[in-house]
Amino acid sequence: MKSLTEYLIFEVKTRRAFVNITSDVKKLVTKSKVQEGLCLVNAMHITASVFINDNEGGLLHDYEKWLEGLAPHAPTTQYDHNKTGEDNADAHLKRQVMGREVVIAITNGELDFGPWEEIFYGEFDGKRPKRVLVKIIGE
Amino acid sequence: MKSLTEYLIFEVKTRRAFVNITSDVKKLVTKSKVQEGLCLVNAMHITASVFINDNEGGLLHDYEKWLEGLAPHAPTTQYDHNKTGEDNADAHLKRQVMGREVVIAITNGELDFGPWEEIFYGEFDGKRPKRVLVKIIGE
Amino acid sequence: MKSLTEYLIFEVKTRRAFVNITSDVKKLVTKSKVQEGLCLVNAMHITASVFINDNEGGLLHDYEKWLEGLAPHAPTTQYDHNKTGEDNADAHLKRQVMGREVVIAITNGELDFGPWEEIFYGEFDGKRPKRVLVKIIGE
Repeated sequence: MKSLTEYLIFEVKTRRAFVNITSDVKKLVTKSKVQEGLCLVNAMHITASVFINDNEGGLLHDYEKWLEGLAPHAPTTQYDHNKTGEDNADAHLKRQVMGREVVIAITNGELDFGPWEEIFYGEFDGKRPKRVLVKIIGE
Repeated sequence: MKSLTEYLIFEVKTRRAFVNITSDVKKLVTKSKVQEGLCLVNAMHITASVFINDNEGGLLHDYEKWLEGLAPHAPTTQYDHNKTGEDNADAHLKRQVMGREVVIAITNGELDFGPWEEIFYGEFDGKRPKRVLVKIIGE
Repeated sequence: MKSLTEYLIFEVKTRRAFVNITSDVKKLVTKSKVQEGLCLVNAMHITASVFINDNEGGLLHDYEKWLEGLAPHAPTTQYDHNKTGEDNADAHLKRQVMGREVVIAITNGELDFGPWEEIFYGEFDGKRPKRVLVKIIGE
């Protein structure tokens, strides 16, 4: 069994952002030399997500607006978590909707993707360096 | 390490539907001859889900109604994504709530399931053929 | 390839609760002797979740309140599923928001976690024994 472990670092300049990380992950699949296996990609921080969806700017804006409706940032006093001195309780909630991780099949040495699948890092409490783990196992 | 890769195709006649795919996946586990391993089942399209829950018609209707409340289809003009000519922005949102994929343990050559676990394909923008990937690895 | 399969049993005394299961899973990773691999942890019941987030009491209370807003328990007559004699339709919905499972990388024989990642069992229909599956594969 082969395996590869790599850590990607993202520091976005805004509180919230979506970053397309598909090409980063594809490079690691090639580097792993795994032909048949599984690729796990997960946020290592609990106010961020990794998810798969469409690389279309309007949709990413729709996600931002929709998540703000489901779990509003303000007023920050509505959340008990923020009594600890944080103001990011909403980020913990938004991350649950979008998910921590994706698991992707590797077939014939490549990510086995449908036509529109792209991998995104979803940041909900940015302005500091945060990590994404890529773990590949297979043969 | 053994592996198996198969693609299931679904074309539902309505915009939204839930399809029980448990027996399809079980057959592929048997075909793989994997005794101990992992089974990934994921939608290959970004307006569809694969999830595990109860095979009970009332609940599936509850999901439909609940998702429509969380991410309404109409008015379609409320979503920036629909400015591209699509009318399926809500489907991209609903899919995030229900999830892209499931990962299931294989133990003694079978899906290692609790008593009520069943695998569903969730379609949120149907009336066309769409694929589900089943990837099995193990020994 | 090595593998390990274990079942954890939880019986919480209340309808809803969050239980930190990180140390249970860590012990099983050690027991498996897997150095590089994947660890799947999933609820085997469809009204419960396994998820990764922050071990902070205020946040867990925020989740409880937020989920009750997204998928209220009462009135129980609002859900078709409850016509079967159940009163737990809301639990099936809450579980979809929080997720069924997590997949965690194992690196150098340990869970490859960011600084604040902890694994929780989320119970939404408790007062009875329910199982969580831990499946580890790797080398």
